[in-house]
Amino acid sequence: MLHIGIVGGTGYTGSELIRILCKHPNVELTCITSRGDSGTSVNNMFPNLRGHVDTMFSTPEDAPLKECDLVFFATPNGVAMHQVPELLAAGVKIIDLAADFRLKDPALWKQWYGIEHQCPELLTEVVYGLPELNREAIGKARLVANPGCYPTAVLLGFIPLLESRAVNQDFLIADAKSGVSGAGRKASVTMLMGETGESFKAYGIPGHRHWPEILQILQQVTDTQVGFTFVPHLVPMIRGIEATLYAPITNQNIDLQEIFMTRYANEPFVDVLPPGSHPETRWVRGINLCRLAVHRPHNGPLVVVSSVIDNLVKGAAGQAVQNMNIMLGLKETTGLDGIALQP
Amino acid sequence: MLHIGIVGGTGYTGSELIRILCKHPNVELTCITSRGDSGTSVNNMFPNLRGHVDTMFSTPEDAPLKECDLVFFATPNGVAMHQVPELLAAGVKIIDLAADFRLKDPALWKQWYGIEHQCPELLTEVVYGLPELNREAIGKARLVANPGCYPTAVLLGFIPLLESRAVNQDFLIADAKSGVSGAGRKASVTMLMGETGESFKAYGIPGHRHWPEILQILQQVTDTQVGFTFVPHLVPMIRGIEATLYAPITNQNIDLQEIFMTRYANEPFVDVLPPGSHPETRWVRGINLCRLAVHRPHNGPLVVVSSVIDNLVKGAAGQAVQNMNIMLGLKETTGLDGIALQP
Amino acid sequence: MLHIGIVGGTGYTGSELIRILCKHPNVELTCITSRGDSGTSVNNMFPNLRGHVDTMFSTPEDAPLKECDLVFFATPNGVAMHQVPELLAAGVKIIDLAADFRLKDPALWKQWYGIEHQCPELLTEVVYGLPELNREAIGKARLVANPGCYPTAVLLGFIPLLESRAVNQDFLIADAKSGVSGAGRKASVTMLMGETGESFKAYGIPGHRHWPEILQILQQVTDTQVGFTFVPHLVPMIRGIEATLYAPITNQNIDLQEIFMTRYANEPFVDVLPPGSHPETRWVRGINLCRLAVHRPHNGPLVVVSSVIDNLVKGAAGQAVQNMNIMLGLKETTGLDGIALQP
Amino acid sequence: MLHIGIVGGTGYTGSELIRILCKHPNVELTCITSRGDSGTSVNNMFPNLRGHVDTMFSTPEDAPLKECDLVFFATPNGVAMHQVPELLAAGVKIIDLAADFRLKDPALWKQWYGIEHQCPELLTEVVYGLPELNREAIGKARLVANPGCYPTAVLLGFIPLLESRAVNQDFLIADAKSGVSGAGRKASVTMLMGETGESFKAYGIPGHRHWPEILQILQQVTDTQVGFTFVPHLVPMIRGIEATLYAPITNQNIDLQEIFMTRYANEPFVDVLPPGSHPETRWVRGINLCRLAVHRPHNGPLVVVSSVIDNLVKGAAGQAVQNMNIMLGLKETTGLDGIALQP
Repeated sequence: MLHIGIVGGTGYTGSELIRILCKHPNVELTCITSRGDSGTSVNNMFPNLRGHVDTMFSTPEDAPLKECDLVFFATPNGVAMHQVPELLAAGVKIIDLAADFRLKDPALWKQWYGIEHQCPELLTEVVYGLPELNREAIGKARLVANPGCYPTAVLLGFIPLLESRAVNQDFLIADAKSGVSGAGRKASVTMLMGETGESFKAYGIPGHRHWPEILQILQQVTDTQVGFTFVPHLVPMIRGIEATLYAPITNQNIDLQEIFMTRYANEPFVDVLPPGSHPETRWVRGINLCRLAVHRPHNGPLVVVSSVIDNLVKGAAGQAVQNMNIMLGLKETTGLDGIALQP
Repeated sequence: MLHIGIVGGTGYTGSELIRILCKHPNVELTCITSRGDSGTSVNNMFPNLRGHVDTMFSTPEDAPLKECDLVFFATPNGVAMHQVPELLAAGVKIIDLAADFRLKDPALWKQWYGIEHQCPELLTEVVYGLPELNREAIGKARLVANPGCYPTAVLLGFIPLLESRAVNQDFLIADAKSGVSGAGRKASVTMLMGETGESFKAYGIPGHRHWPEILQILQQVTDTQVGFTFVPHLVPMIRGIEATLYAPITNQNIDLQEIFMTRYANEPFVDVLPPGSHPETRWVRGINLCRLAVHRPHNGPLVVVSSVIDNLVKGAAGQAVQNMNIMLGLKETTGLDGIALQP
Repeated sequence: MLHIGIVGGTGYTGSELIRILCKHPNVELTCITSRGDSGTSVNNMFPNLRGHVDTMFSTPEDAPLKECDLVFFATPNGVAMHQVPELLAAGVKIIDLAADFRLKDPALWKQWYGIEHQCPELLTEVVYGLPELNREAIGKARLVANPGCYPTAVLLGFIPLLESRAVNQDFLIADAKSGVSGAGRKASVTMLMGETGESFKAYGIPGHRHWPEILQILQQVTDTQVGFTFVPHLVPMIRGIEATLYAPITNQNIDLQEIFMTRYANEPFVDVLPPGSHPETRWVRGINLCRLAVHRPHNGPLVVVSSVIDNLVKGAAGQAVQNMNIMLGLKETTGLDGIALQP
Repeated sequence: MLHIGIVGGTGYTGSELIRILCKHPNVELTCITSRGDSGTSVNNMFPNLRGHVDTMFSTPEDAPLKECDLVFFATPNGVAMHQVPELLAAGVKIIDLAADFRLKDPALWKQWYGIEHQCPELLTEVVYGLPELNREAIGKARLVANPGCYPTAVLLGFIPLLESRAVNQDFLIADAKSGVSGAGRKASVTMLMGETGESFKAYGIPGHRHWPEILQILQQVTDTQVGFTFVPHLVPMIRGIEATLYAPITNQNIDLQEIFMTRYANEPFVDVLPPGSHPETRWVRGINLCRLAVHRPHNGPLVVVSSVIDNLVKGAAGQAVQNMNIMLGLKETTGLDGIALQP
């Protein structure tokens, strides 16, 4: 059994990691840390885990993190970058589910996250953990930055179009919608059910932290400047992201369905739906899968892609486990073969 | 008191009309018809109306529709066009909340609604009931086609941009989201709470009936061909529409906020929010108001507008009463001065 | 115009008071205080009030509370008791929407609320603001304790049964369910939509603060000891309380429907539904009304009452305005004649 | 591999059976019938099953039901009783998830379900499929009546109290609440999201079909007459039942927690929570488990139990698979070891 640690186990991505890993046949959860809740039993905080997990949260200091084969950081932004260098030096592999290592440029990081980066030297080494794009590099990496939830849904929809030069990269638009769990499990007025239930809104139109993250990868894929507009929205539901993508078609004769079918033919965690489909977030509830459909309305100048994921699974903990499987030489799909809970 | 009739009072737009009109100081609900539920007391079907309305649904045949000053049709598409000519001939004014009179071209109607139009001669006369665009014509009209819910939210967001030539009309995009009441109150598997709760999806990407309706008005406003893409989505909530609009800016120096403030300065039912705002559908729950905000993300090439309405009020029954007030020479805001129910 | 002040205007009961009072024809909102948000415009925090209210939150010190005819406290428990004596001395009438003056016994208050009462001498004078029980006393009162939300729904269901001695007071059970707004508008993990959406639970079974409040009134009504069990539950919705009440029938020949019809015949804010009805919380959404139905399943030994209110209106702000109308000699129904927003 | 058939696979219990069985290591889904949707691919109707199930719905006539080891009926009430005798005669074991075989008395069946029973002779043989009560008999049965969803949650809460004579069986009350999926997947106005969202109500107070079913088992357990009141409620969520049970304690010195711990010590699918707990329906979302807690408020005369299940799993399909495992000699927990999806 491989030994796995989780730093920061009391948020939604942390508890989701525990849910997935405690059923994983090849790993053992050696320690789960929480500074605020050390000494509390994990299944007391998350009663869905009663009977499945029997450990307590420990402080990061007491946890044998250096003895782990791999450690996940499910901490708030700006925490992992303080602890990662020491763990890497001890030979531990790292997957960070926060944003600390997602942006290659430390100045850009500071601009969007408001804090000085603590280990900019690692930013050249770190691999962006989107297996459908970087599988080989992930397999060799010591340090993987797990993508944000919106970026996963958006990038999987744009990549086939950009790689095949089917669209003009100057006018890419992603209109994305997320359930409330994307905002995390922390005390807040804004995310009360009384404030978010039975209502819908856009937010972050002037600028959202996932915009530079997505833009960076779009430009890496196209190897050129990209014009990209991103508007996130808040949906009165718990799990799920849907991203509707718009891009101008450059080649009128291209078979859009074929482009997606070919690009993802061997991807276990991307499901290209039949022509005419409209994916629903419940079709991926609780599982590590992106389901998407491609359309060209009225045979017009724009391609429209609708892409759905569970923000906590393919958008966070599930994708992290997928990356772990790759990094540790396990079968990529191990522990990730569930069926979406519908209805 | 003016005499008002409602044909088809058992759906969501019908019951919303009753809710508004029974508090209107200048009108009296003379008759409310329902073929299927005639003889049933209105407040038995809609107990929220107990103590406010004391009539029974009657059959269209028994109802004194010809003695009304104005009749609303809140019937399924394709019903009003059979009865409107006779009522007009009797001197009754008509507001149709269905789609029968929204498209000027009967061939287009047949293409999208699948049935032959029964009174194409009225299509030249009918006025499209968006008061912010057609107030004067509505005041003189015998027959008004009340706009669809999506078209109201989308058009109010695009009109100032198009009239001021601030955007390029070749690449207009509306990514719109609606609560489930937009689908009406009729037996269905698709709209069960078990099917629509806790999930989000796009639908109608290949083509939705509100697309030609919006396009027709956009082209009328610009007096030219328009490239317009429309993707509706279903939100797990009951009331509310949010439309996020995208358009390429033509004039970099234009003051977008000013354009909207000026255009809607005297409009009682459009509220232009301060710069940086993100309207929420709950801010207009239950009231006849469009609240919208205009953005230019990253000072880039696109303008983004977020526009919200209550689909049953400004998107249907409230706008119909606004039209009624104009047609009958009443103060336009009469009976429409409520406060949104938040939370 | 009468002058009204609100202390603590940023919570759900405070904003609901503003929503109702700003449409009230006989009063003027002189000041709305908030220590944390003074200087903020009210309609910036509650955009549904844009166009209806144009004041700013002020500090309690700056607000001309002593010049008001009546002041509402919509503060957390334990705040009003510090400020009420001084305002009463200045001749201001008071309605407290918190719990400070609901329990007659200061020792009981300390036991349930954990703090020493600051003005126990007022506890003999204060009137419990349930107009259906204490209308006359409310009309003469300087200080009214507005009932809790659960107590309102439960008491209105039990009072006719107890007054008529139709049930045995030794085994009264109230199984009550509330939407999330009952927990208030304050930062919290427990009340996040991610924690409360799509789930249902009982809470407070060992003891809830509304239990002694209800028990006190039940014993006052019966003038004897009462055996009362109360279990509250949390419903994944925003507004609304339903209470299902159970009690053993003492008189087999009694006409239960008649008891309720007679008791509430002249009550404008209690609607006894026809036999066989099942009230829904949406039937009272946004309005000051209790709708209830009485049943005797299988003609058996128990009476079952189902009673619904909007917890923020008849369960808080609406009832407070009803009390204000009575205290200030206005028509009791003024400003409270809305129609429930359904759907 | 054992061969399994499902008659009626397009409802919520049918699709839930498929979700569980397609991951079961010892069985093979030989046929899934649907008269209305024969020829449709299963994963076209339930896209969450894409990649897991690859069959089509067939007509009951075409399906090789007689060659199955066991057939589940997930049909509307009144269908199974027409087909079961012939399949039993062919040596096929049967689990009926509908109500056809739940009531032992055919007259009672007719009274509550309105149709004459077609095979009353089987009502003496059939075993009520609550494994925690009837495990041994289920192991020997040819025909099992899978319990209703409410009965499962209610009975598991009452059985320990009744078996230990801790309560007086004359005044048992179950106040139960269910998500909307309990009403099934069929076209309906009442169950639209527009009608059930953001609202809560009691229903069926005069009498609900699960009342005689529960009463029958309560009387069988106590071997005497039982006084039982049952009020179901509808919760605006999809999955989950919570039942709050009330009963008068007969023995003041009894250790209620101990009674439950002992009774369910070896039950894999009942989780007795620590004292003071309040189970939430999300703690069992998607899994075959009843979680419950026992309370005695204010050390008073009543015991209160709160019991939660997922109505589609322990309340339907999961319990059916548990019964299948017992009937076919498999390990009882096979295929039923998931973790609840929280949040």
